Amino acid sequence: MKGISILGSTGSIGCNTLKVIEHLGDFRVVALGAGKNMSRFAEQISRFKPELVSVADEGCVEALERELHAIGVKPPQVGLGTPGLEAVACHPQAETVVSAAVGAVGFIPTLRGIEAGKRIALANKETLVMAGELMTKAAESSGAEILPVDSEHNAIHQCLRGERKGEVRRLILTASGGPFRTKSKQEIENATVEQALDHPNWKMGDKITIDSATLMNKGLEVIEARWLFGFDADQISVVVHPQSAVHSMVEMVDGSIIAQLGATDMRHAIQYALTFPDRRENCMPAISFSDLRELTFEDPDIDRFPCLALAYDALRRGGTTSTALNAANEVAVAAFLDGRLQFNDIANLNRTVMGLHKTRAADSLDSILEADRAARVAAEHFMTRNAPALATQRV
Amino acid sequence: MKGISILGSTGSIGCNTLKVIEHLGDFRVVALGAGKNMSRFAEQISRFKPELVSVADEGCVEALERELHAIGVKPPQVGLGTPGLEAVACHPQAETVVSAAVGAVGFIPTLRGIEAGKRIALANKETLVMAGELMTKAAESSGAEILPVDSEHNAIHQCLRGERKGEVRRLILTASGGPFRTKSKQEIENATVEQALDHPNWKMGDKITIDSATLMNKGLEVIEARWLFGFDADQISVVVHPQSAVHSMVEMVDGSIIAQLGATDMRHAIQYALTFPDRRENCMPAISFSDLRELTFEDPDIDRFPCLALAYDALRRGGTTSTALNAANEVAVAAFLDGRLQFNDIANLNRTVMGLHKTRAADSLDSILEADRAARVAAEHFMTRNAPALATQRV
Repeated sequence: MKGISILGSTGSIGCNTLKVIEHLGDFRVVALGAGKNMSRFAEQISRFKPELVSVADEGCVEALERELHAIGVKPPQVGLGTPGLEAVACHPQAETVVSAAVGAVGFIPTLRGIEAGKRIALANKETLVMAGELMTKAAESSGAEILPVDSEHNAIHQCLRGERKGEVRRLILTASGGPFRTKSKQEIENATVEQALDHPNWKMGDKITIDSATLMNKGLEVIEARWLFGFDADQISVVVHPQSAVHSMVEMVDGSIIAQLGATDMRHAIQYALTFPDRRENCMPAISFSDLRELTFEDPDIDRFPCLALAYDALRRGGTTSTALNAANEVAVAAFLDGRLQFNDIANLNRTVMGLHKTRAADSLDSILEADRAARVAAEHFMTRNAPALATQRV
Repeated sequence: MKGISILGSTGSIGCNTLKVIEHLGDFRVVALGAGKNMSRFAEQISRFKPELVSVADEGCVEALERELHAIGVKPPQVGLGTPGLEAVACHPQAETVVSAAVGAVGFIPTLRGIEAGKRIALANKETLVMAGELMTKAAESSGAEILPVDSEHNAIHQCLRGERKGEVRRLILTASGGPFRTKSKQEIENATVEQALDHPNWKMGDKITIDSATLMNKGLEVIEARWLFGFDADQISVVVHPQSAVHSMVEMVDGSIIAQLGATDMRHAIQYALTFPDRRENCMPAISFSDLRELTFEDPDIDRFPCLALAYDALRRGGTTSTALNAANEVAVAAFLDGRLQFNDIANLNRTVMGLHKTRAADSLDSILEADRAARVAAEHFMTRNAPALATQRV
C-alpha cells in the first residue's frame, strides 16, 4: 500500500482523488487537510481513517469534533492552519502528496512536501505561478517529482512521454473559452456571478471557474507550463477548443503534433498522476468518437479576455511579477464572488496591481511572500479607495 | 553520411523521399530501384549518383541508357527485376531501405532487406498484408527495425513512444473516407476511374488512391497494424475523419487517447522514419489551428464500403487469407483502372476470391507466393469468365 496525503481533501479535486484511491485499491490515506466543510471532512475521516488531519482554525476543530462525535468516529490527531497542512504534506508515510488546496493556502505546505522529496500530484496551480523558480529548484534538489493534475498539463506530460525536450517546438494549451466565449465585450462587462460560474464543460471549484471565465486560468496555466516543463513564454501558445476533448498538445520540431484527448473528468488526470509511470484500467468513460463528432479550434481573443495577455506579460517580466498577478487575481476573484467587483474589473485590478508592482528576484520564500502580501494589500486598497478610477480604466 | 536504398524511387513516396534526403543533407543514396519511368529515373541517377540501380526489364535498361546518354550521365551498375531489387535492398552500404515499390513487386526485396538487418522505412503496405508473420519473424531474428512511412502507422508509432504495449487498449486508425464518403450506394456503384482517382486530401499513386476510394486501403492498414504493432483485430478500430489532420490515435487502458496530427504531406512521415529516434527541423508546413478550425469524426459504413469488412475477415481467418485478399485486390484495382471492371466489382471480386481461397499457414515464402499466385489466377479467371455472375453478386 502506498501512503498518500491530500491537501484540500473536501474540494473538487480532493473528493475526486478519494474516489480514484477507492478504485485503485492499493493506496492508503495517511493524512488529510481540509478548509471549512467539516461535515464532508468528518465523512472522509470516517471512511479513510487518516492518522493525521488538519483544518483551517480553532472553530473548525470544534465543528469537526462535533461532526465526528455525531457519527461515532474517534478524532485523529488534528493540526491547524499552515503548520497543520505542512505536517500533512510531510507525513513520513506519505509517498505522494496531492496538492489541491485552492489558492495561496497550499503554497508553503506544497513547498515542504517538495523539500521532503515526495511525489507531488499538483492541482494547486497558484503554487507554481507564485513561486515556480523556487519550487522547481527545490524539486531538483530533493528529487521530488511534480506530476500535474490539471487536465492541460497532465495532457502535455502525456504528450511528452518518449519525447526529448530539445525536439519540442512549442506547447499548445487548449482552452474551452469558458462561458463567455461567444459573448460580446459588453455582455462580458455586465456578467453576473451566476453567469460566470456556469462553465460549459468542467465542474470545478468557484475560484477556478471564475478564472476560466476571464481566461486568467489559461494565463496561470501558461506560467505553470513554463515551470513544469521548462519552456519560454514564446514556446507556449493557447488555442480555444470549446469541446475540451483535446486536453492539450505538443508540437515537435518536425511539425508533428502530439495531442492527448480524454473525457472531461478530472479523475483521469488524478489517476495518471498517482500511478505514473504505470497506466491502470478504470471504469471511467472514455471518449466516443461517434458521440464526439466535431472538434473546433479558434484563436483566443485578448481584447475580450485581457487576463490572458497579462499572464504572458508577467511571465516575460519575470521574478515576482507572476506572484503579484496571482495575488491580485485571488483578491479580485473573491471580491467578484462577494459582489464587490464587476466582472470586467477583475482584469483591470490585476493590470493595475501588476503595473504598480516592483519586480524582485523570486528566489526566496521571503521575497515571494512579501510580493504576495504587498499585492494583496495593494489590490484591497485600490479596490476600496479607487473603485471609480478602476471603472474609468475599463478597456 | 548514412547510406540509403530506395525501392520504387520514381513513385510518389520515392520522389518525396529524395526531397527529404536533400533537405536532411546527411544521407547518401547508394542504390535505387524503379519501375518504368526511365526519364525521371535518369534525372534521379544524375542528381544522386547511386552506385547501383535496378529496373523492371531489358526494355527499361535500353530506355534508361538512352535517357542517361542524352543528359551525359555515365550509367551505374544496372540490375533487373526482382533480383535487381533484392540487390538494391541488400546493398552493403545501405543502413536504411525505403520500401516504396507498389504492390507485390516490393515483397521479396523488402524481405531480403529485413533479413539483412537493415532499417526498413516501409511504405509498401502489401508486404505486411501478404506476409506479416514471415516479415515480423524475420525482423525479430535479424534485428531489423521496421518504421512505417504511411501516415496512419507512422502516427501510431509516434503515439506509442514512451508507452507500454500492455497498457494499450486499442489503436484507432483514421480514414479520410475517400472521394465517395458522402456518396450514395448507387453513385458509388457507377463511379468512374476519374471520380475514384480524385482523392480529397492526399496526392498519392493510382493503386493506393483507388484503395482509398473502396476503403480497402484502410482494411489493408488494419492488417498492417496487426503486424507492425502486434495487436489483435479486436484492438484495431477505424474512424472516418475527413480532414485527415489527426493521422491516427492510440487509446490507453486508462481511457486516455494519444493522437498525432500533422499536415497532409508524406514527407513528414518519411523524415520521421529516416531520422528516428531523432526528430529534425524541416521547412514543411505545420498544422495551423487557425486554418484548421474544425475536425469531424464518423463511423465507417461497411455497407457502402464492404472492402473494410473483408480485411477484418481476412485477419480473423489468419494464415494466407490476407495474402489472397491482397492479390485479388491488386488484380481487381488494375482491372478497374483498365476499364475492365466496375468500381463496385472490386469488392465483389475480392470477396469471391477470398471465399474460394484455401487458407494455409503463412509461415514460408513458398506458401505465401503460392497463395498470391493462386489468388491472382482465380481473380483473372473469375473476372474474364464470370463477369455476369459478379454483376449478380452486387450487394
